[in-house]
Amino acid sequence: MTISAARENVIHKVNFSNPRSFSTTVKSDLKETFFPDDPFRQFKNEPSTFRKATKTVQYFLPVFEWLPKYGFKLFQYDLLAGITIACLAVPQGISYAKLANLPPILGLYSSFIPPLIYAIFGSSKDIAVGTIASASVLLASIIEEAVSAKDDPTLYLHLVFTATFFTGIFQFALGFFRLGILVDFLSHSTIVGFMSGAATIICLQQLKGMFGLTHFTPKTDVVSVLRSVFTQTHHWRWQSALAGVCFLVFLLATKHVKKKKPSLYWISALAPMVTVVIGCLAAYFCHAEKHGIPIVGHLSKGINPSSIQFLNFDPKYLPYTIKAGIMTGFLALAEGIAIARSFATIKNNQIDGNKEMVAFGMMNLVGSFTSCYLTTGPFSKTAVNYSAGCKTAMSNVVMAVCMMLILLFIAPLFGYTPLVTLSAIIMAAMLGLIEYEEAYHIYKVDKYDFCICMSAYLGVIFLSMDVGLMISLGLSIVRALICVARPPISNLGNMSNTQMYRDIEQYPSAEKIPGVLILQLGSPIYFANCTYVRERISRWMDHEQSTSDSNSTDIDHIILDIGGVTAIDMTGIGMLTEVLKSIERKGINVVLANPKREVMEKLMLSNLVETIGKDSIFLSINDAVEACRFNLRSSKKQDVGDDTDNVV
Amino acid sequence: MTISAARENVIHKVNFSNPRSFSTTVKSDLKETFFPDDPFRQFKNEPSTFRKATKTVQYFLPVFEWLPKYGFKLFQYDLLAGITIACLAVPQGISYAKLANLPPILGLYSSFIPPLIYAIFGSSKDIAVGTIASASVLLASIIEEAVSAKDDPTLYLHLVFTATFFTGIFQFALGFFRLGILVDFLSHSTIVGFMSGAATIICLQQLKGMFGLTHFTPKTDVVSVLRSVFTQTHHWRWQSALAGVCFLVFLLATKHVKKKKPSLYWISALAPMVTVVIGCLAAYFCHAEKHGIPIVGHLSKGINPSSIQFLNFDPKYLPYTIKAGIMTGFLALAEGIAIARSFATIKNNQIDGNKEMVAFGMMNLVGSFTSCYLTTGPFSKTAVNYSAGCKTAMSNVVMAVCMMLILLFIAPLFGYTPLVTLSAIIMAAMLGLIEYEEAYHIYKVDKYDFCICMSAYLGVIFLSMDVGLMISLGLSIVRALICVARPPISNLGNMSNTQMYRDIEQYPSAEKIPGVLILQLGSPIYFANCTYVRERISRWMDHEQSTSDSNSTDIDHIILDIGGVTAIDMTGIGMLTEVLKSIERKGINVVLANPKREVMEKLMLSNLVETIGKDSIFLSINDAVEACRFNLRSSKKQDVGDDTDNVV
Repeated sequence: MTISAARENVIHKVNFSNPRSFSTTVKSDLKETFFPDDPFRQFKNEPSTFRKATKTVQYFLPVFEWLPKYGFKLFQYDLLAGITIACLAVPQGISYAKLANLPPILGLYSSFIPPLIYAIFGSSKDIAVGTIASASVLLASIIEEAVSAKDDPTLYLHLVFTATFFTGIFQFALGFFRLGILVDFLSHSTIVGFMSGAATIICLQQLKGMFGLTHFTPKTDVVSVLRSVFTQTHHWRWQSALAGVCFLVFLLATKHVKKKKPSLYWISALAPMVTVVIGCLAAYFCHAEKHGIPIVGHLSKGINPSSIQFLNFDPKYLPYTIKAGIMTGFLALAEGIAIARSFATIKNNQIDGNKEMVAFGMMNLVGSFTSCYLTTGPFSKTAVNYSAGCKTAMSNVVMAVCMMLILLFIAPLFGYTPLVTLSAIIMAAMLGLIEYEEAYHIYKVDKYDFCICMSAYLGVIFLSMDVGLMISLGLSIVRALICVARPPISNLGNMSNTQMYRDIEQYPSAEKIPGVLILQLGSPIYFANCTYVRERISRWMDHEQSTSDSNSTDIDHIILDIGGVTAIDMTGIGMLTEVLKSIERKGINVVLANPKREVMEKLMLSNLVETIGKDSIFLSINDAVEACRFNLRSSKKQDVGDDTDNVV
Repeated sequence: MTISAARENVIHKVNFSNPRSFSTTVKSDLKETFFPDDPFRQFKNEPSTFRKATKTVQYFLPVFEWLPKYGFKLFQYDLLAGITIACLAVPQGISYAKLANLPPILGLYSSFIPPLIYAIFGSSKDIAVGTIASASVLLASIIEEAVSAKDDPTLYLHLVFTATFFTGIFQFALGFFRLGILVDFLSHSTIVGFMSGAATIICLQQLKGMFGLTHFTPKTDVVSVLRSVFTQTHHWRWQSALAGVCFLVFLLATKHVKKKKPSLYWISALAPMVTVVIGCLAAYFCHAEKHGIPIVGHLSKGINPSSIQFLNFDPKYLPYTIKAGIMTGFLALAEGIAIARSFATIKNNQIDGNKEMVAFGMMNLVGSFTSCYLTTGPFSKTAVNYSAGCKTAMSNVVMAVCMMLILLFIAPLFGYTPLVTLSAIIMAAMLGLIEYEEAYHIYKVDKYDFCICMSAYLGVIFLSMDVGLMISLGLSIVRALICVARPPISNLGNMSNTQMYRDIEQYPSAEKIPGVLILQLGSPIYFANCTYVRERISRWMDHEQSTSDSNSTDIDHIILDIGGVTAIDMTGIGMLTEVLKSIERKGINVVLANPKREVMEKLMLSNLVETIGKDSIFLSINDAVEACRFNLRSSKKQDVGDDTDNVV
């Protein structure tokens, strides 16, 4: 009496049709891995060649998609948004360039050329291009390992251009080869921890500007920074500190206003520019320099000079420039793409991550030729752009034009900006980035994620920016691997009066079927979890046998629900074969329920289907249970010698 | 009209009870990660303290479990098996010690102490302890980087003892801290590829012994080895080659006999010993050395001297000894545990991987103090042990006693063994390890696994043993990560006349529900796959809307079947929230079906349950479909202004 007799009543059977060909599966796997968003679906069915060509050009250069439809009505909005972000770009540009130990003018250069490039290649309508604080500090901390910005500022500058060049190449390559998948490995928790850590460090570093100190440590860990501040108490300048606190209070107040009344966003957007103008005027008229308040110093007129001749490929420095280029590029991508995506979601637009990478890459590549350093889509600027009502990437063009005018005519005036103003602006911006509330939320929901977040935070503030990022990234990957290595396997029971089977631990009302053990395997079966799956199945069997002693029903059948097994590899197939054999040696029948297509294909190719028998594979748990029950009844009848009813 | 009205007919509801406490989940996670086999389950419920203590001792020292029940009847079997494997141990020991560039006597030492240690700590009843070829070559290739065995044999020997010491520490620590999970990451395909590659290289290296060459390259890649053989054609000795071919043919013939008649296993088990004896006699009587057939040379009498004073912790060599210790230890564990497990499965025994690691670790630790080098449970010896009918680890003790007698009395006689005999023995053993049939099977079933296998094989033969192993390991992990990053998401349809919903691509007969899109998410939702999941859902929606134009039913509801989602992290929750919001902005209702416990807990902690609404979470797809249908009908009625039937 085989288990198959009960199959007669079953309406639907398992699909045993031939496995797909190798080329089909490879094509589909490659597509899902590298083209998950199916970017060409929109013009795959275009009939005419001309329209196809147009669509292709529009795909690669999004500017051709929106520019033809662009009109004055949209321009009104973009003009306003562009001017607003230009006002933010000047103080931020100068401040962040100081963070990266670069001449302040580079911050202004970086808000001129890159936004124009982004307007051509970028697909986001909200991103405002600019430099970011965390990447600036990370860049500085890596390049400082090779050469000190103080001792050899020219070489340092050239190495920064070279690092930006590598960033561009790296980002472009990632996008071109559709490796957006790599950026997916920066998890939310890592980013929260890293950003908060970077913000903490940057805030503390601003104490230098606040107290008007001239010597400072190039290191970025909290111990070095605090030691540097508190060993120089005799150099503290009270004038500077007082001015700094005033500016900071003003900036934080405007932020508070924005929080209370979001429509007044422009107050906080203009505040940094106002601070800079007040600072400049005060410094100019009071000769601040002589009163212990250092200023930015000389800023030359004129737009970006070429820097292509400065790229330095000396093998001695290559390890540093490549490392800096890749790490900052990675970070900038993660921030830029995450932000583009968030704003696109609000507006119901689509963002193509790989296309954004190409745009960022082009932007930094051209930037490295035109005296710019690392740019991306910073959160603060993009949020202001969005609040100011931008409609297209034209707002970036407006900003670039504003910057050009500033560079051509009034740049030298900003040379009077007191450093303490910049410090206050940076501090005000950074305080908002220490996301303790988000960290607490993570703590509440997921403790392991909290560990990842805190390892990034503590790593950044106590060790260094790159080490913190790496540790956190490593922990995230270990977590993903543990999740692969320890898939949940649960014991199912029947929900009374239904054909549903659910985890007994989750639904205590679910009833076990006497003599039948139903196990649900819930993830791909891979080399990494084979041993575990084997152990866990045997533990369930032991557990079942030790608890079922009371009502004296031994297990006769085991149903493995493999509906959740989405893939299986060679080691998995070997394990499954062994497990099936060893269970059957104990006189227990094993049946499979609901194999998925990928798994079914492998089972057929490896001849495991023949080993198990096609009769022992069912489409649903319910079918399998019915068959087992039927089999149990018939074997009992056989046991008592009553064979008459045996032919169903 | 909300979707909830239809819930009235539902028998079972989703379990919204409070999430488990943090300590409960952590405890269960830690247990599943580090104690997946629940080793203490057997004596958890023991009532008396004495019995508990006994069981604990028996757990840590398995010898106390089997020795008390041991009697003469079992000993008969073990005696025979022990003598058989001792006969194999002598030629194998000498040969593999030569492979590791070590004095041949070390091979004999290594078959004396370690088997005794294993008999105390080991839990496998089948393993026969000894050295293995692949690890011997790997060990030699790493230590040779630090010091040449030819130029400074004493230092080389001491470094090998030190590496063995580290192997012991490493294996013991892995077992003690229950990190057996690490060994799980060596997949079947990696092992097949690596072993075949190592066997190929070792075979080619034997051409040295076959042709009686004295100079040879220390490198292990195929190009260096072949160059070394063919640039010395003028040194080839025909006498040696002739003898070698004869021995090889004899050994292969005995293997063939065993394959045809498994009961004659003893012929192939004794063959190497016979070859050695014949070789010794021939060499002794014909003065082989003078006829161009080099012999092993002086072997001193006496058992293992202490080597604890030779352990060398010079920082200059530490990187090499540690690397060699860890890599060979890892490889030896993988082979030993895999083999113990296979034989245990045949006999229906249980093997505790972590306990085996502790046993291997102790064995190598003590071995490094007593002039032994790396030992494990080699496949060939274990298979012979099993065929010879071993019953317990006592067969290892018998082997050890035999080795002791040999060491004390007749070891010097083996000094006459011609090297060509050893080469023939190694070649015969290695030819059986090149698993081309298995590789073809892998190729047929899983192309990616085949790539992993071939990368190990080609890496080993063209680059070096450790690089090959690392590349293959890296590829396996990349595969696991890609599988995490690209989970399958399928579109489900109803199987007619049932409540089952299946993948439409797998079961083309499954019917779509008009106006309802059912998507099945099939794996944990993690930072690594969030972007993909988002893209894939939006692609399914576009696809559905573009194909449903014909019958003009737009999608009104999306059912996300998250029954296969076994875990979710913070990034995943953020993604899900965004996706739900953006879908609802399009006027489409989203409902969830069958959340698992872990996921439900996270959804509740993050307040996502409130955002979705408890009414929109169903226990099964069928319940969800019913509710959606009901909702569709009611909204249509509302559309035509017929409100009379609306109160169900």
